[in-house]
Amino acid sequence: MKNSKIQNLRVYLGEISDLLHVQALLGWDQQVCMPPSGSEARGHQFATLAGIEHQRWTSPKLEKLLNAAEQETAGLDPESDEASLVRVTRRLQRKRTQVNPAWVSEFARVTAMAQDAWVEARAASNFAHFEPHLAGVIELRRDYAEFFAPFQHVYDPLLDDFEPGMKTSEVQSIFKTLRAEQVKLIKAIAAKPQVDERFLQQRFPIARQDKFGRQVVRRMGYDLKNGRIDISAHPFTTTIGRGDVRFTTQVNISDLSTCLFGNMHEAGHALYDLGIPSSLARTPLAEGASMAFHESQSRLWENLVGRSLPFWKFQYPRLQKAFPMQLGGVSLDAFYRGINLVEPSLIRVASDEATYNLHIMLRLELEIALMEGKLKVNELPEAWNARMQDYLGITPPDDARGVLQDIHWSAGSFGYFPTYALGNLVSVQLWEAMRKSIADIEEQIAQGEYAGLLGWMRENVHRHGAKYEPQRLVRRITGRPIDPAPYLNYLKTKYGAIYNL
Amino acid sequence: MKNSKIQNLRVYLGEISDLLHVQALLGWDQQVCMPPSGSEARGHQFATLAGIEHQRWTSPKLEKLLNAAEQETAGLDPESDEASLVRVTRRLQRKRTQVNPAWVSEFARVTAMAQDAWVEARAASNFAHFEPHLAGVIELRRDYAEFFAPFQHVYDPLLDDFEPGMKTSEVQSIFKTLRAEQVKLIKAIAAKPQVDERFLQQRFPIARQDKFGRQVVRRMGYDLKNGRIDISAHPFTTTIGRGDVRFTTQVNISDLSTCLFGNMHEAGHALYDLGIPSSLARTPLAEGASMAFHESQSRLWENLVGRSLPFWKFQYPRLQKAFPMQLGGVSLDAFYRGINLVEPSLIRVASDEATYNLHIMLRLELEIALMEGKLKVNELPEAWNARMQDYLGITPPDDARGVLQDIHWSAGSFGYFPTYALGNLVSVQLWEAMRKSIADIEEQIAQGEYAGLLGWMRENVHRHGAKYEPQRLVRRITGRPIDPAPYLNYLKTKYGAIYNL
Repeated sequence: MKNSKIQNLRVYLGEISDLLHVQALLGWDQQVCMPPSGSEARGHQFATLAGIEHQRWTSPKLEKLLNAAEQETAGLDPESDEASLVRVTRRLQRKRTQVNPAWVSEFARVTAMAQDAWVEARAASNFAHFEPHLAGVIELRRDYAEFFAPFQHVYDPLLDDFEPGMKTSEVQSIFKTLRAEQVKLIKAIAAKPQVDERFLQQRFPIARQDKFGRQVVRRMGYDLKNGRIDISAHPFTTTIGRGDVRFTTQVNISDLSTCLFGNMHEAGHALYDLGIPSSLARTPLAEGASMAFHESQSRLWENLVGRSLPFWKFQYPRLQKAFPMQLGGVSLDAFYRGINLVEPSLIRVASDEATYNLHIMLRLELEIALMEGKLKVNELPEAWNARMQDYLGITPPDDARGVLQDIHWSAGSFGYFPTYALGNLVSVQLWEAMRKSIADIEEQIAQGEYAGLLGWMRENVHRHGAKYEPQRLVRRITGRPIDPAPYLNYLKTKYGAIYNL
Repeated sequence: MKNSKIQNLRVYLGEISDLLHVQALLGWDQQVCMPPSGSEARGHQFATLAGIEHQRWTSPKLEKLLNAAEQETAGLDPESDEASLVRVTRRLQRKRTQVNPAWVSEFARVTAMAQDAWVEARAASNFAHFEPHLAGVIELRRDYAEFFAPFQHVYDPLLDDFEPGMKTSEVQSIFKTLRAEQVKLIKAIAAKPQVDERFLQQRFPIARQDKFGRQVVRRMGYDLKNGRIDISAHPFTTTIGRGDVRFTTQVNISDLSTCLFGNMHEAGHALYDLGIPSSLARTPLAEGASMAFHESQSRLWENLVGRSLPFWKFQYPRLQKAFPMQLGGVSLDAFYRGINLVEPSLIRVASDEATYNLHIMLRLELEIALMEGKLKVNELPEAWNARMQDYLGITPPDDARGVLQDIHWSAGSFGYFPTYALGNLVSVQLWEAMRKSIADIEEQIAQGEYAGLLGWMRENVHRHGAKYEPQRLVRRITGRPIDPAPYLNYLKTKYGAIYNL
């Protein structure tokens, strides 16, 4: 990127990138280090930096830089770094410029209050307390969509923030197939004898869990030279800058899964960001292709690797050595079945691979109905519970374990949920493509060798950063758009074997 | 501060304050948390935020806001918060506006390289490697002074950055008295039998040292609700925002003093910043009055409290309980003498109360001679060693333990060193003023009660923030300007008793 106009643009975008990463540090510090009395000052710091970042995105100077860079790159290969940078930057700049600044501050104000109300409402399991706040958020989200009118669907502009270029109708069509098949699958599983996972209900000393969890991510390729692992209330991964991608974890003495699979999940996110090449650093291309793509990496490591038999062929003797009292008498096969137990449950984040997507579909349907105005906010708990019964055969005993369980709506993140399910689908599509080029990938994993996997992801996914829209990137790698069939095959094969379907 | 012009100014300054605190977080994180590969990105982040902060200080908008606020506050009591805010802000804005922006980036570039060269030069004890870099730094520092011409002395504009309003001639006059008397004192001490401090040369387990050190600062009034204590290579205190003032420490298994007195020193700094009232938050008044005032607080807790007999009357039995093997057989009196051993030594940061200021005076004299051009950079090691012999009677065996020991010159911080010695003087002046209003302060301390001390400092020092220039504030509290006599009396009385002078 030596052309002068592009270089000017890069310098400008470098500062925006710095502002973004500094905000990431403010967030990381708030969750991991900040003392309680620091929160008011932190709020001011966030507001100030976000304000400066917004100014920079919407300034006439950026418009001028972009115009010049567009002229300069007009004849270039659209897949070149230069053309991609200009295209993606223009897209982001347009989106930000189309939104009224008054809306931005109003949205920040309303969601800050809505989040406080949500915390209280969930603690008291009192939806009515949250209802007016949620109504306000939804109204603002409809206003937001209007900035991008005309659109095919009112939900499109929201989805586009997380999955660039993707349409609501595409997601609905994918989910339609998925829903019917997944509901059928879990009914079939429910008719079979349940696997035994009582061995997981023991006490697993914290320090050993932490050590084992760190060993696993180190072997995955996550190096503490490039990051940190800390404890926080809700695990997350965050990029503080090139070469500094940190994640957090939870270690629960009576639950082996939280730390182990949580670490693999977050390290999957971290390895994606660490795999983006330095040539894209400090530009809007130094991101994952979309939230679904990001989730494909975390879910791939967590589930396709971490809950697979080959992985445990290597790791289980090591785990048994770490916890001889607890696991010495449990066979590899019994352990593998236990960590793959399927059971419809109330809470999304704790749900298994076979039921997870149903939690997501329920949320997407409700989000769309709310945005379309077909569902009123006060009807939401009832609609939630009806769908839970429909899809999973259970009804939440209270709203805290139902409609109030997730933070997303209070934060205004409508459009985010579907990316979790899409990420699951993409993870299996990538896996199959990888298996075609690395025939012995499962043997490698059974030897504790993950470098082949990581190398393939770096080459095919990570190195492109945000150059391609997600549907384009899936197609580039697999020849197909996002598709539910591979995921459904994967579920049926895996659980067919575990539950003798 | 409800007047509208003042309020506009405060909103503007609030964002500058946020930018400053975010830079403090970047620095804290770099020393405490950041993984090694994060340093390049961190450099960009610092540069971007410093650039934005500089723009804001030198913008026409601030000029306009200040003009309006000056009109609005023209008739107010100059000691009011409003008038003080406008006065201090104008002072800072002028200083920043007078400096050429090209100088700012050149200085950043040259000192960044000089610091790297200093690290290498010190490791190899090779002054010649550092010499050209130091020459460049000094030249830039002379250019800096020229931005503020005319001046009484070329060192004045440098000193003014750390001690607002103070003149080189004032410091020289204070130091002249101090030097003669301190040299005499340490000669008298050297003629007496040395105290025994061998009991300090034992192994003191890290975890117990940390626990004891935390107990002491908690009792001083430092609450982890408002901060954190972490480990870093060089202990420091930093304000991340109102209600979030963190410090770092070092724990050395074979040295009890580092953690204990280090904690008290840093907590002294932290309590100052935590004592600044919320009415001044997010303004340039939310700082200490000067570096010397800041150092007066840290040295007061470290030395006047931490190395005093009353303090150990309460704490020593607790320390013995924490380290029964090491200290069970050492009497309170022997312990008190041991921690107050006086011995001329090579390294400033490890030196005792009686010799410390001589290390500072030596540096000030050399800084002034370099700035005046009377000393050439290549003559510096010789001049250093000659003064060490003169004042302390020892000669460094190499430059690493001589002229290369401190980071300050490589960072361009000329003008900083004298504040350490001035802080010592102010600490005793404050102590004496406090003793007049709290007659039983030593008995309180001997009971483990430090709230009286902290309350007095809050009322007389902390609550004013940066409203007053340091000489004005000392005079306001003690009726006298900064004065060497009380400090000299303190040293003579204390060491007279310990060494039977």
